[in-house]
Amino acid sequence: MNYKNTWPALLAISLATSLQADEGQWQPHQLTQLQPALIQRGIEIPASQLADLNQYPLNAMVSLGYCSASFVSPDGLVITNHHCGYGAIQQNSSAENNLIELGFLAQTREQELPAGPQERFYVTEQVLDVTREIRQAQRSDLSPAALFDATELTRKQLISQCEQAANSRCNVVSFHHGLQFFLIKQLMIQDVRLVYAPAGSVGNFGGDTDNYEYPRHTGDYTFLRAYVGKDGKPAPFSKDNVPYKPKSYLKVNAAGVQAGDGIILAGYPGQTSRYRLAEEIRFAQQWQYPQAIATYRQMIDTIELFGQQDPALQVRYAAVVKGYHNRMKKMQGLLAGFNATDVPALKERQQAALTDWLSASTQRKSMLQSVDELAAVVKQEQQFLQQTWYFENAKRGDLFKAALDLYKLAKQNELPDAQREVGFQQRDLKMWQGRLQRLDTSFDATVDLTLWSQQLANYLRQPAAERFSALDQALQLSAAMSESAIAAQLKPWYSKTELHTAEGRLAWLGKKPADFAKSSDPFIRAAVAVYPIAAQLDQQQKTIQGLLLQKRPAFMQAVIAYNQSQGKPVYPDANSTLRVTYGHVDGYPAADGVYKTPFTSVRGMIAKRQANGEFALPDELVTAYQANQYGSYFRKTLGGQPALPFNSVPVNFLSSADTTGGNSGSAVMNGRGELVGLNFDSTFESISKDWYFNPAVTRAIHVDIRFVLWMMQEVDGAEHLLKEMTLVQPSQH
Amino acid sequence: MNYKNTWPALLAISLATSLQADEGQWQPHQLTQLQPALIQRGIEIPASQLADLNQYPLNAMVSLGYCSASFVSPDGLVITNHHCGYGAIQQNSSAENNLIELGFLAQTREQELPAGPQERFYVTEQVLDVTREIRQAQRSDLSPAALFDATELTRKQLISQCEQAANSRCNVVSFHHGLQFFLIKQLMIQDVRLVYAPAGSVGNFGGDTDNYEYPRHTGDYTFLRAYVGKDGKPAPFSKDNVPYKPKSYLKVNAAGVQAGDGIILAGYPGQTSRYRLAEEIRFAQQWQYPQAIATYRQMIDTIELFGQQDPALQVRYAAVVKGYHNRMKKMQGLLAGFNATDVPALKERQQAALTDWLSASTQRKSMLQSVDELAAVVKQEQQFLQQTWYFENAKRGDLFKAALDLYKLAKQNELPDAQREVGFQQRDLKMWQGRLQRLDTSFDATVDLTLWSQQLANYLRQPAAERFSALDQALQLSAAMSESAIAAQLKPWYSKTELHTAEGRLAWLGKKPADFAKSSDPFIRAAVAVYPIAAQLDQQQKTIQGLLLQKRPAFMQAVIAYNQSQGKPVYPDANSTLRVTYGHVDGYPAADGVYKTPFTSVRGMIAKRQANGEFALPDELVTAYQANQYGSYFRKTLGGQPALPFNSVPVNFLSSADTTGGNSGSAVMNGRGELVGLNFDSTFESISKDWYFNPAVTRAIHVDIRFVLWMMQEVDGAEHLLKEMTLVQPSQH
Repeated sequence: MNYKNTWPALLAISLATSLQADEGQWQPHQLTQLQPALIQRGIEIPASQLADLNQYPLNAMVSLGYCSASFVSPDGLVITNHHCGYGAIQQNSSAENNLIELGFLAQTREQELPAGPQERFYVTEQVLDVTREIRQAQRSDLSPAALFDATELTRKQLISQCEQAANSRCNVVSFHHGLQFFLIKQLMIQDVRLVYAPAGSVGNFGGDTDNYEYPRHTGDYTFLRAYVGKDGKPAPFSKDNVPYKPKSYLKVNAAGVQAGDGIILAGYPGQTSRYRLAEEIRFAQQWQYPQAIATYRQMIDTIELFGQQDPALQVRYAAVVKGYHNRMKKMQGLLAGFNATDVPALKERQQAALTDWLSASTQRKSMLQSVDELAAVVKQEQQFLQQTWYFENAKRGDLFKAALDLYKLAKQNELPDAQREVGFQQRDLKMWQGRLQRLDTSFDATVDLTLWSQQLANYLRQPAAERFSALDQALQLSAAMSESAIAAQLKPWYSKTELHTAEGRLAWLGKKPADFAKSSDPFIRAAVAVYPIAAQLDQQQKTIQGLLLQKRPAFMQAVIAYNQSQGKPVYPDANSTLRVTYGHVDGYPAADGVYKTPFTSVRGMIAKRQANGEFALPDELVTAYQANQYGSYFRKTLGGQPALPFNSVPVNFLSSADTTGGNSGSAVMNGRGELVGLNFDSTFESISKDWYFNPAVTRAIHVDIRFVLWMMQEVDGAEHLLKEMTLVQPSQH
Repeated sequence: MNYKNTWPALLAISLATSLQADEGQWQPHQLTQLQPALIQRGIEIPASQLADLNQYPLNAMVSLGYCSASFVSPDGLVITNHHCGYGAIQQNSSAENNLIELGFLAQTREQELPAGPQERFYVTEQVLDVTREIRQAQRSDLSPAALFDATELTRKQLISQCEQAANSRCNVVSFHHGLQFFLIKQLMIQDVRLVYAPAGSVGNFGGDTDNYEYPRHTGDYTFLRAYVGKDGKPAPFSKDNVPYKPKSYLKVNAAGVQAGDGIILAGYPGQTSRYRLAEEIRFAQQWQYPQAIATYRQMIDTIELFGQQDPALQVRYAAVVKGYHNRMKKMQGLLAGFNATDVPALKERQQAALTDWLSASTQRKSMLQSVDELAAVVKQEQQFLQQTWYFENAKRGDLFKAALDLYKLAKQNELPDAQREVGFQQRDLKMWQGRLQRLDTSFDATVDLTLWSQQLANYLRQPAAERFSALDQALQLSAAMSESAIAAQLKPWYSKTELHTAEGRLAWLGKKPADFAKSSDPFIRAAVAVYPIAAQLDQQQKTIQGLLLQKRPAFMQAVIAYNQSQGKPVYPDANSTLRVTYGHVDGYPAADGVYKTPFTSVRGMIAKRQANGEFALPDELVTAYQANQYGSYFRKTLGGQPALPFNSVPVNFLSSADTTGGNSGSAVMNGRGELVGLNFDSTFESISKDWYFNPAVTRAIHVDIRFVLWMMQEVDGAEHLLKEMTLVQPSQH
């Protein structure tokens, strides 16, 4: 491996000079280097405090695993987005008592509802650099696949040791794509309860239509609460559990912010691709995203057609379709953003500048080959993706997929726990149980057969050389078969299986591969027959991942050195770990002649209102508006240019903070670390920030805390929760 | 008649106190009262000069009859909108040499093309108050219909006297709906030629999609030229004619304007309804506009269906569909505007305030009855409109309409010229010839039969009491007939008529009613049969118009007195006479969270570009853009809040000027009266200004003169025209 281990020191040095825009999803420890930039943005809280996991406000930050959140009371009250609390709300809903639609407010602690067995709160307590440990395992004589395995084995060992501590959830995460590794230790709270959710028409106002759009008027907030055993330690749900006492909780600033104010945003951004090769963005633009969009489009259209004929199916697949829509719209936004400013060409110019810079010095010339070597591996990875695309999609039948997963679990179970693949270990069993159980809520045999047959038809349209004979034989497919012929062929399978019930699926957990081999269930038999292909592809994938583990860190060294030479910020791509970003409340020029102003109002929400559908609103909200019941949340102006009259209660606002998926529910704080909003989305023009941060137009969309407080006080009657929180009321703007 | 004739004096007094927003389409002579407001807006040119028809800049203003324009060179060069020059361009186009598409530039005077026999330039030379003369004719003992006739007779006499002067076109126009009358005397120039039009893709960039929309990027300008006989006097087209020497011509300010700059706009606004009863806006909202929109929708859909099957029909009906689209979108905008701020409710509150004010004083109480009396007449008018709606639409077959017009012309020709209806006199003959001739360019028998049958089917669906038996009999219609039965019934007519050719139609001009009675042409026979109904409805219409002539002036007196008491501006509704409005360059809040900035750019135009269709662009423009050939028209910023970088050539800009249809092509001038743009449209949010001027969102859209100059210099090679103009180049922004 051709890179040195001296980069962390160099990283630290670079930060002080990188006073650029508001780009950067910073690791907390990096913040100490950013004091001048924070001051410039009006952040009063000292950088050293902000960098400390054990101090306010970072010790009040919470992860839901898939979303961000924060403690807002001494009794473990947690605020996050409505769309992050969706599972907890759905879990407690029925046709007769649909809390998604009606909203929910527990008037007492006793009324607070279990959020479901899958819901967890995670609090990051420790972040340790374990690069040295990983590096020791990555011996240079190993084959790429062996290198991948060795890395994984060390990761699992470190995780296992860390999780000896009671109630800890640990992970070893790669930063800068294998250049550094950190062990993240989190406190895991298992008893999560639903406290308060506004009506769905508020929490999801605008629905899919407004998703990723601005102007936006969505009250995307929900309150949960952490419960622990009477000993104060995390415990599974029990009636006897008591509210958790967090180390700290965010103060809430009821006066909110105005245009230009500095803000801090902390949370768990999922994944960005800011340091990819130009070849990778071109591949995403020209092949990957268009392919995925077409697939989502076909699945959405099919499910919606069923939904039009049968409203029950519409309800059953609502969350699935919402997810597909969200991912599709994100990819459409990425493509639109790529085109709007030709990001791929910009990345190509950046890469050319990098190689020019490397070529210009004899010292640096040796790093040039890292670019070519990575490009060669990336090419391999892309070919692999293209070759397996239709095969992977051919597994999109839910029951077939369940059978494949169950058989792989059985095969993995034959290995010692430490040698199993990440995601297939003992610690993952609960996740699998939940997943196999939950399928019931979004499954219909006819819809599943149709979706599966469509994808199989797409697969069959590929040349014989790109198909897999084991799959063809297992499903008795032949090239000439139409989609309807495939459906006719597979339809009988659905009456000969037990996998369509939760019990039927869960019954296979813990069984041996030999039990699978003996089964007469057609899905199980097909899974056993297809497994060798899947295993072989897993192995190919490992080789590619091993190669990337070798080649990408060297490239990252070159990129980091170059960026530092240019005075550009250097922070790792997002990887679902705790990050802090800062910025300011600001509008943006959305198009030639169009400027989006930073605040939206209840008046604008009312103006969008329709009698039914995505833009309906609860009568209580409309009544409070019509009666001018604004509490102390009415603002005549909110600053900014042009200085327009505002004259309403703010609902959403924009900031220049650097966010991505996973940042949903993140606390947006003012310069004193007081809660002023909740992050919940980005503008459509911002989506391409995952690849390239354009400070002129990149804006995150936040729920204004004044809207939340107004709803609690004037609309939903949640004063008891307001009392529990610490509301700061400085002089209003 | 219960109003005094002392109002003009009162009007003058009121102006000095009405320093409101930028509302007001002022009669030139009113401007002398507005000096403080003009100074406040940075208008340097003295109000007394601006008010004078014989001084710069008003003596450089031109009317096309349906559009506004202005002289821009000592050799009679005129600038107006591309859509105003459309007829002139179309007149010179053929399938092989489509100037609409290609654009046109005469390199020499000899190459300048006749704009067609219908095109005229009018220059307003004199405006005389003739209220006293009209009032003398309106004797209080006359019946309403007789009052109408007496008014018309006096108008025609005044016009006839005025038109004794050679080359004069005169009109007597009602101001404040019968409260005042002015005789307008215009110089009429008959030889109009096409000099330069940009490619249609520039002149109509965005097409129907962008019509009434902003951000906008339309290069809506065209140059024409006035020609006169060698003696300097207007004369019909002749090769020997020479360019007209206007009394003055506008200087062109090549530096343009920036946000906040004051502007003056002069032109010929067509019609507004700012002083209508609340009952009238409710009628428009609830019945009139929805009915008209539905009718246009049906006709557009029908023609577009034919166009899809036959591209030749698409071309033939393009201008017709464009007109329908424009009127439909305007009415949709009116309805949207009414709903957005509930203008009808606002008008009701205003009317209630008026009646409260009248009731509050014993002196004013007598005026109260004017409101009720007008309301009663308006009710009658509305009932008449509703009763005749389907009958009027049943005349929408072009050949049937032509036959009805021809027969009415013959009937009117039996009267002495002075007694004929306005529009049917000797002076109108050329107009009729042109109209009957032009029908050829937008007529197809199958399309016409279909459109006519649809409207007849709508008519037949009405109860028998609301139909007209003469029409039913003439067309052999019965209530049970379907649209296709009607079409089958009328199809043979189209092969038995000569009216489908221009010669066939023109041959009937000058014939006697007796000749019509003898004809075997089915359309002519039907026209003769239906004429008595039409004549009877004309008479009813006269009665209503006579009643309105009695009642509306009294109401206007009350409104004016009230508005003056409130310090509100008092100017007459638009009536196609020369008006001056002023304002400033400004953006506007288009929706909660959206601010439209005042300038659009060539960069934004390029961003909208598509390969084909409404958003295509000429290669020459794209090439100049890509080569950064900006001449001196590139601007880094253009002021305004937020102060965003601009970095391009401006294309369109917004101002708060008070405009309406007919203001197309109006000169937009800076504070020194130098040309800085051309008015061509309003934003969608502004459309309802025809009824209520909301200063917060009402913005007119102008072509930036810098775009015109850039096109001439860098794209189209029109330097010889630039040389002819007087370009002022003060220090650039």
